[in-house]
Amino acid sequence: MRKPPFVLLLTCAGRKVALANQFRQAFDELDLDGQIIGVDSSSHSAVLSVCDKSYVIPRCDHPAYVPTLLEVCQQHRVQLLLPLIDVDLLVLAEHRERFREVGTLAMVSSLPVVQICRDKESTSQFFEENGISTVGNLSIDEVRHGTVPYPVFIKPANGSGSQHAYKIHNRDELDFFARYVPQPMLQEFAIGQEYTVDVLCDLDGQVINAVPRRRLEVRAGEISKGVTCKDWRIIHATVDLANKLGGTGPLTVQCFAGEDTDSEIRFTEINPRVGGGLPLSIAAGANYPKQIIRMALGQSVEPCVGDFADEFYMFRYEEGVYVPGASLADIPSLPDVPHRRAA
Amino acid sequence: MRKPPFVLLLTCAGRKVALANQFRQAFDELDLDGQIIGVDSSSHSAVLSVCDKSYVIPRCDHPAYVPTLLEVCQQHRVQLLLPLIDVDLLVLAEHRERFREVGTLAMVSSLPVVQICRDKESTSQFFEENGISTVGNLSIDEVRHGTVPYPVFIKPANGSGSQHAYKIHNRDELDFFARYVPQPMLQEFAIGQEYTVDVLCDLDGQVINAVPRRRLEVRAGEISKGVTCKDWRIIHATVDLANKLGGTGPLTVQCFAGEDTDSEIRFTEINPRVGGGLPLSIAAGANYPKQIIRMALGQSVEPCVGDFADEFYMFRYEEGVYVPGASLADIPSLPDVPHRRAA
Repeated sequence: MRKPPFVLLLTCAGRKVALANQFRQAFDELDLDGQIIGVDSSSHSAVLSVCDKSYVIPRCDHPAYVPTLLEVCQQHRVQLLLPLIDVDLLVLAEHRERFREVGTLAMVSSLPVVQICRDKESTSQFFEENGISTVGNLSIDEVRHGTVPYPVFIKPANGSGSQHAYKIHNRDELDFFARYVPQPMLQEFAIGQEYTVDVLCDLDGQVINAVPRRRLEVRAGEISKGVTCKDWRIIHATVDLANKLGGTGPLTVQCFAGEDTDSEIRFTEINPRVGGGLPLSIAAGANYPKQIIRMALGQSVEPCVGDFADEFYMFRYEEGVYVPGASLADIPSLPDVPHRRAA
Repeated sequence: MRKPPFVLLLTCAGRKVALANQFRQAFDELDLDGQIIGVDSSSHSAVLSVCDKSYVIPRCDHPAYVPTLLEVCQQHRVQLLLPLIDVDLLVLAEHRERFREVGTLAMVSSLPVVQICRDKESTSQFFEENGISTVGNLSIDEVRHGTVPYPVFIKPANGSGSQHAYKIHNRDELDFFARYVPQPMLQEFAIGQEYTVDVLCDLDGQVINAVPRRRLEVRAGEISKGVTCKDWRIIHATVDLANKLGGTGPLTVQCFAGEDTDSEIRFTEINPRVGGGLPLSIAAGANYPKQIIRMALGQSVEPCVGDFADEFYMFRYEEGVYVPGASLADIPSLPDVPHRRAA
């Protein structure tokens, strides 16, 4: 009898085609008959047109979101659910147990961990309580009254990507952007180089691997050119952070490090999900798709921290999925409602 | 005896991998042994790692730029040179004849046409002198003194993409952005839908095809989701504009059109080069690569205006080229200088 396929569900799948392809590659390497189901709240999603099955479902702030996902998981015997962006992490963390009940591993950290990471105040508190060096927050008044030198950095307290994030050089720009940016938050303009670290933890919170990479160019808030850096200071500091946090699955961590080997590694953000630039770390040999699939299969995955190619480059370009309008109308909606025609 | 290959040179090649692949597809369709040479001023270019031959060459504002390109064209018997972005259009238009002398068709409009398009004042004057409807420019004073209602649109006079372009809702934002934006230019906030039209003209300035498309989503100033629209009002207005301009090869035109069938088509910009979203029009059946190659082969190309699929969608995603650092150092530099290590 033929084995049933291994089914992966990608939520808020959007534009993550390259990552989906890397999972297909991992299916091949594991000799698995893998299938990918993509769901998104809009039929205008590149991934939906390339997955094995796709559904347009309600947005993740809608009461029908979790029930609809559970229905898809049950009907298609989904073994692994992987969230790709920030918006549904809290609701998925809250319902991890319900997914487990229908046989699906929701690859997301526990609710307390997600809460620490999603709220910038809680992240600061976590850093402070655990002796983790960080970049300081500033009050608008102390900058305005000249106790801190320019430049400083302003961004929305609950922002995403680099949206509405500006470098501020003088009082004029401060006064304007403090009104212009929603829920503005000021930070020191950190000295040194910024690094993103792609971390993978196993289901017990043990770190499997951690890959620091530098962003050489950013477009629309996402890495467009990058390079891996096997910098053991950053790797060790990140493993220490992840051990203290106790996350599950992928984490994406931001930090600053100076050139000087004695300089502190200062952390700014933890995102408890795959990072937008993860395809670089995977291409450099950190085979997270294979390791994540093996976790979902109940296999143990050995830690292999540092197992990736150093100075490995990624140069991104825009590739397209091309579809006649008629095919978009063929993507089914769940719950079964008449297809909403997107603008 | 084996026929020599058809050699295409892409200048400032950067991230245009999808377009390069569509040219490869056209080589196949024409049963040509096609080769693509990519040149860029940085080895950190996605295209350079996927072309048949690649060179790092001086920037297009460097005196060695044209001599270096001519050397590459001569050495590799380049039949077709295609510029992809704005920066080198003027210098290539100026030297079209020198490329012709070494057997290379530089697919760029004449110098007077490029000058009209590259300078926003000259474009306005061209529109006015030819009775082409356009979106009005505003003076900062008339907006400040309340003779024009908000919102208005501010952008740098010689900008590119959507860099430093902001919608302005009130006096506070006007005062700030008039200082913040370099060489600010104010425009009416045009009503209606914005369209980009991918035009192809033959070597005599005759329009081969014109494909209007709507941008459904923009990222980093470039189309990220789009759809073709066979709107004959826009097609006719654009063909009229192109006939009056007399361009050569690809043009990318921006305009606004209201829903009302009587509403004017108002033009804002002409870029005498391929547009960033051209891969959509090509995928929809406007086979510009094939038509451009045939022009370079001296074959006549019949006009086929309107020959493309209507309501054809493009959803873009980030694909990556992955290379070990050592391979980057292997890309030769012209003139032959020690390899500059990019940051």
